[in-house]
Amino acid sequence: MSSITRALAYSQANQNRFVAELIDLLRIPSISTDPAYSDQVTQTADWLVDHLKGLGVEDAEAIRTKGHPIVVGSITVDPVCPTVLVYGHYDVQPPDPLDLWTSPPFEPVIQEGVLYARGACDDKGQMFMHLKALECWMQTAGTPPVNLKFILEGEEESGSASLPGFIESHREELSADVVVISDSSLFAPGIPSITYGLRGMTYVEITLTGPDRDLHSGTYGGAIHNPIHALAALIAGMHDEGHRITIDGFYDRVRPLSDDERRAMSALPFDAVAWAQEVGVRASLTESGYSVLEASTSRPTLDCNGIWGGYIGDGAKTVLPSKASAKISMRLVPDQDPNEIAELMEAWLRARVPESIQLEFRMVHGAQPVLIDRQSDAMAAASRALEEVYARAPYFTRIGGSIPVVADFKHLLGLDSVLMGFGLDSDAIHSPNEHFGLDRFAEGIDAILRFHTHYAAG
Amino acid sequence: MSSITRALAYSQANQNRFVAELIDLLRIPSISTDPAYSDQVTQTADWLVDHLKGLGVEDAEAIRTKGHPIVVGSITVDPVCPTVLVYGHYDVQPPDPLDLWTSPPFEPVIQEGVLYARGACDDKGQMFMHLKALECWMQTAGTPPVNLKFILEGEEESGSASLPGFIESHREELSADVVVISDSSLFAPGIPSITYGLRGMTYVEITLTGPDRDLHSGTYGGAIHNPIHALAALIAGMHDEGHRITIDGFYDRVRPLSDDERRAMSALPFDAVAWAQEVGVRASLTESGYSVLEASTSRPTLDCNGIWGGYIGDGAKTVLPSKASAKISMRLVPDQDPNEIAELMEAWLRARVPESIQLEFRMVHGAQPVLIDRQSDAMAAASRALEEVYARAPYFTRIGGSIPVVADFKHLLGLDSVLMGFGLDSDAIHSPNEHFGLDRFAEGIDAILRFHTHYAAG
Repeated sequence: MSSITRALAYSQANQNRFVAELIDLLRIPSISTDPAYSDQVTQTADWLVDHLKGLGVEDAEAIRTKGHPIVVGSITVDPVCPTVLVYGHYDVQPPDPLDLWTSPPFEPVIQEGVLYARGACDDKGQMFMHLKALECWMQTAGTPPVNLKFILEGEEESGSASLPGFIESHREELSADVVVISDSSLFAPGIPSITYGLRGMTYVEITLTGPDRDLHSGTYGGAIHNPIHALAALIAGMHDEGHRITIDGFYDRVRPLSDDERRAMSALPFDAVAWAQEVGVRASLTESGYSVLEASTSRPTLDCNGIWGGYIGDGAKTVLPSKASAKISMRLVPDQDPNEIAELMEAWLRARVPESIQLEFRMVHGAQPVLIDRQSDAMAAASRALEEVYARAPYFTRIGGSIPVVADFKHLLGLDSVLMGFGLDSDAIHSPNEHFGLDRFAEGIDAILRFHTHYAAG
Repeated sequence: MSSITRALAYSQANQNRFVAELIDLLRIPSISTDPAYSDQVTQTADWLVDHLKGLGVEDAEAIRTKGHPIVVGSITVDPVCPTVLVYGHYDVQPPDPLDLWTSPPFEPVIQEGVLYARGACDDKGQMFMHLKALECWMQTAGTPPVNLKFILEGEEESGSASLPGFIESHREELSADVVVISDSSLFAPGIPSITYGLRGMTYVEITLTGPDRDLHSGTYGGAIHNPIHALAALIAGMHDEGHRITIDGFYDRVRPLSDDERRAMSALPFDAVAWAQEVGVRASLTESGYSVLEASTSRPTLDCNGIWGGYIGDGAKTVLPSKASAKISMRLVPDQDPNEIAELMEAWLRARVPESIQLEFRMVHGAQPVLIDRQSDAMAAASRALEEVYARAPYFTRIGGSIPVVADFKHLLGLDSVLMGFGLDSDAIHSPNEHFGLDRFAEGIDAILRFHTHYAAG
């Protein structure tokens, strides 16, 4: 029996325990954006260090940062073997709105083979597959066929503020041949894909201030520029009738989709009507001239992620508010630059804010967009591994989300990433009732084991 | 010595006791919005009944409602005399934030001729002037020169839910020639005014729903109509460039300001620059063609009082939200109708909501606008009374807020109200350290006595 066969058999035999361990990990509410959960984020890092040590990663440790700890560890088999750097993140999105969860977000439950919990898919569940793949090797062959390094961060959902600095100051410890990340999705159930394009992001927060305090709308209404109205006018003006973004210079550095890419994309089995139905809308809305798939993966966007101002409790309060605020994120594509886009946005806003209103503008964070070479050895090994697990070759796709670390690994370490994800778009990863199919958890471990094997064979 | 002279002298001679009695009344925390104070509200009603009986109002009683009691009572001098219905309210605003009071809100103190307590001005202090005016007549002439009826409610600060039904079911008992209300302000210290116009209101809440759940802005951004953007576009479209409201038919029933009114308004000592500075804005914004005073008192408005959607906590969450909501109030002027305006608003919205978005529309409440005839006998009597007390004729003013009971008396009993108020905008009536100058308390009683005399003379 070959090493890979024994490793796959071990995985199959131990699935229930693997899932039970994952459930322990999911119980810890590692919400990185909310300072109230800081202790739980640290507790999760410690849990991972203990777990890695238990697997044989003796140098595993949680390294302090100005934010949340970064967990690292390595297994060196032989310097001549290729080295795979595994990236994952152990923090999760806030679970709000809580009342829409059918079971509590941090009390995982399994129903009909699906595991429900915040982080089940994004990214604790997918990250944990790599730890379990290592266990399969350690408990069967004694070592994996490649050198493995882990870097597991706790700030992905809050902007990965500590990660770039950490990568820069740990270049040597992190040196590798390729990065592997499972934090993305299958193309569709049973249809594997490898992501070669990611959007970047510029996330900003703006606050408009009108009067210096909340006023009575009876006494003052009719003669004061209401900052909610000013904000609404600005947001309404950010798209034109063709749903193109109106910020001056916004599209200047956008690399057009090649004919080749557009052909490949239009050949994908994608049903735009079903897509719209699945999220409960009667119609999609895209930039004029682009398909739903193109617009949602390969074109830049602007979305207001949150808005608030005035009285938002029950009933009526006749306040003419002092302030109105919005969080706005722009998804970027190569070669847009996050900082430059923030500057263009701020300039556009300042040129349009009315005289009676003051603007506060803050860039919350940014991420570079990425396109990865589809012809590398690692891509070939990943493609073969996925084909063996799913009995069909993967699609090469671009996705609409951002994984800033991919850009960081590229720009800081010169490393390409293989994005081999096992989520589904329907996993509700930033929504109530996030879930992950246990079949995909098992398939992911298999694919990772096969990838190691093929990549080691070169 | 004439009756009025004797009554005025009695008032002057008994001021200290009047104030001591008012202090007793102010000690009872009749906070109508907080169920925890329900007993104290009832206790206040009983206090007033006892006090009225002591003054000779033998039929005084506190009538139960579904909410707090309504205190009524009457003195019939002679059926041929005109009848004045006195409205006031004995409930008060909550005193929070308590730590900003320099003395406890329900332990009244006098400092330099100013009485500090919750309710000192709004409205216990002003209401009590009418009781003390009655006492002056009873103890000097034996009866007032007019028939007097009292209706004192305990739910004004919580929306007067019981009052309209009570008025409807007590038409006969409340029949009168005019209503007098002291629950408003002087134009400025020493400058009397009579309010003859009040705006009405239509308050609505709207919710737009795009996708049926919050989505990941990376995965879906670029192809989904974001409901915050749809809401922003609708709100932005509610005013045109001249800051006129664009809802079809909105102005159809607006009674234009007469040339006479505009002249009188422009003659008022109003400094629009100081007004803007006082609320911290660089510039006012009014409907094109109208002054700040006109726009804030006598023209209809539309203000978003609250807006919310998506993620509004700290930091960044890349959500493409399912819902966005707004509370919107429109201040109305005669002859706009609150229900009709709500219908026009809903129709306007439904015609503009994009295909991919669903609208929920709810009218929260409405209030009729009011204009009172300035040429009536009662207005003439009030004007003369104020001129005698303040040695200058009162201004006739319109205010931007709503006093729903004035509309109720008009529509349910056909009665005009004389709004003869002795507060000042600086009395902090809904804020910590509410106060009322004892000079104004005395002037108010004098003015009421003189009003009775002139109104009786016809």
